[in-house]
Amino acid sequence: MTNDKSPLSDALQSALTALHIQDAPLLVAVSGGADSVALLLGLCDLRESLRLQLTVAHFDHALRADSAEDAQWVSQLAAGLRVPCIIGRREAGDAPHPRPLSSEYRGEGGSEMMPEESARKLRYGFLRQTAKEQGCRYLAVAHTADDQTETVLHHILRGSGLKGLGGIPPQRELDADLTLIRPLLKLRRADLLSALAAWDQTFLTDPTNVELQYTRNRIRHDLLPKLRAEFNPKVDEALERLAIQASDQQAAIEQLARQLLQKAVIDVQPDSIRFNRNEFATMPVAVIREALSLAWQQQSWPRQGLGFQHLDHLASMLVNGTPTKLSLPHGVEAACRGNLLELRKSKRN
Amino acid sequence: MTNDKSPLSDALQSALTALHIQDAPLLVAVSGGADSVALLLGLCDLRESLRLQLTVAHFDHALRADSAEDAQWVSQLAAGLRVPCIIGRREAGDAPHPRPLSSEYRGEGGSEMMPEESARKLRYGFLRQTAKEQGCRYLAVAHTADDQTETVLHHILRGSGLKGLGGIPPQRELDADLTLIRPLLKLRRADLLSALAAWDQTFLTDPTNVELQYTRNRIRHDLLPKLRAEFNPKVDEALERLAIQASDQQAAIEQLARQLLQKAVIDVQPDSIRFNRNEFATMPVAVIREALSLAWQQQSWPRQGLGFQHLDHLASMLVNGTPTKLSLPHGVEAACRGNLLELRKSKRN
Repeated sequence: MTNDKSPLSDALQSALTALHIQDAPLLVAVSGGADSVALLLGLCDLRESLRLQLTVAHFDHALRADSAEDAQWVSQLAAGLRVPCIIGRREAGDAPHPRPLSSEYRGEGGSEMMPEESARKLRYGFLRQTAKEQGCRYLAVAHTADDQTETVLHHILRGSGLKGLGGIPPQRELDADLTLIRPLLKLRRADLLSALAAWDQTFLTDPTNVELQYTRNRIRHDLLPKLRAEFNPKVDEALERLAIQASDQQAAIEQLARQLLQKAVIDVQPDSIRFNRNEFATMPVAVIREALSLAWQQQSWPRQGLGFQHLDHLASMLVNGTPTKLSLPHGVEAACRGNLLELRKSKRN
Repeated sequence: MTNDKSPLSDALQSALTALHIQDAPLLVAVSGGADSVALLLGLCDLRESLRLQLTVAHFDHALRADSAEDAQWVSQLAAGLRVPCIIGRREAGDAPHPRPLSSEYRGEGGSEMMPEESARKLRYGFLRQTAKEQGCRYLAVAHTADDQTETVLHHILRGSGLKGLGGIPPQRELDADLTLIRPLLKLRRADLLSALAAWDQTFLTDPTNVELQYTRNRIRHDLLPKLRAEFNPKVDEALERLAIQASDQQAAIEQLARQLLQKAVIDVQPDSIRFNRNEFATMPVAVIREALSLAWQQQSWPRQGLGFQHLDHLASMLVNGTPTKLSLPHGVEAACRGNLLELRKSKRN
């Protein structure tokens, strides 16, 4: 391979600039697959111009007999690029794979076994700890525009609703000192493969990418090719646009909900909150529901069991003043008195 | 068949009540297929209790040699139910079938021929004229919850964006005197088939339902069964919920955009409009874009060519005051002066 600048590096530079990343210690998660190898090489191209201090992290899920060889391969790749490399490995005491999927993901089908969640948890635990130990401010992962498309389609089929349609965000704060970034999110997997071919760089074709098994694999290798061939050759762009619009509109509703709360909340106590009903009169019900959900969250009351119907009834109570009393989950009681609406949580719950 | 009340009639009664329909002259579009036959029988059950004056309309697309027999069958069905029946027929001078699909529907694939649009146009032309001649205030069509699901999925795949996700509305004003209603929109096709079986009522298995050919047929008979079997047995409900949320959120954005315009528009002339920029300061960009699109529409300026990017640049100009000038499609120029933003359309365009 050479270190010439490539179109990949240009796109990567734009992404890092948009994320305001420069002169920063950055941990790169590398499975050894095409996406993460392309990410690593692309970042190496930019390490001088953007003054990046790179460290590679690889997690060995130990699900295959030869997985240690993958770890070895990644170590050698990093050494060749003069980047420090930390290898983690699943220990005998860690949660076993595979285990039954959590109910959120199981859907109605029920019996499917998916190790994704526990594998992901272990790997991210290792990555966060390593970032902390190495003093890294950012953790870069190799999700692409194809991952984005697949996620949006997965969420549509699973029924995650409009919030799930927003897809994968380009960055997410993991804690006060560490931000997860996805600088390849606008790039297609095909472009990464071209870049790797131009660099004459090999990659592992079967890394321990357990997350892609089951549903995601079927979306990638069966459903999406069928949709492109039989329905719309540009279905990927269609899904990506939908995701952008959905997260844009969701952001608008959330911003308005926060503004509404600022005006409408009269008094906050740990076990109660009081609203001025007049402020809600001209607001669309979607914004009122979002504001009530946000207020509930700010009280740190348990969110589980509080459904769309509860929020909808509460919104209608705020606007119409009827009913005057409503019981909500976790012992929260809503009561209307004139222009006031009070939510109060009983101490027993 | 008998005229006993059925669960279908109960659901239909709820739908008509929600649409405030009672004591009204109502034209029922009947192809002779299961959905429209069930609609007609269900409405007949309610004609006394809701004082409905029913008339049947059937359009013979004359695409098959035996299509006149279908028309005859529908006439006899209506006669048996003591409902007047008007038959329309495509004439030699009408637009031929099939013709190339309009570019909006053609997508990138390009070559597919689809007669849907022209067939639909002819049929709706006949239905509207018949409603007028018969003095009908409502036109009832037999779209079901399955049509809704298929439409949402079709829009997702075609890339209609978030607005297209709203799906089929339960009613739509065709003109000042005629409203299209879809009282079966919450009912599954399987429920209609059960009701028909209970009534011992036959129906045509291959009516001239040209709209369901091509893409829609593949969605109904191939894609949706695959999604239910391999991804989520409740995918229909997931798509329906998504449609409800999307149209709910879209309605919120539109309501806020109208409120914003009321506050922010200072002066309107046929060829110009002026805004107070201060009103936009705390508004989310999604609401500002919608308000600008609405203002443009209220001026009756041509909408074609005005894209997301134009609206986005204009929104940013409103909020930031820069750039101070912007050229938009159809000779519209935007200019910022202090707290004012003016849109002016040159007379030449």
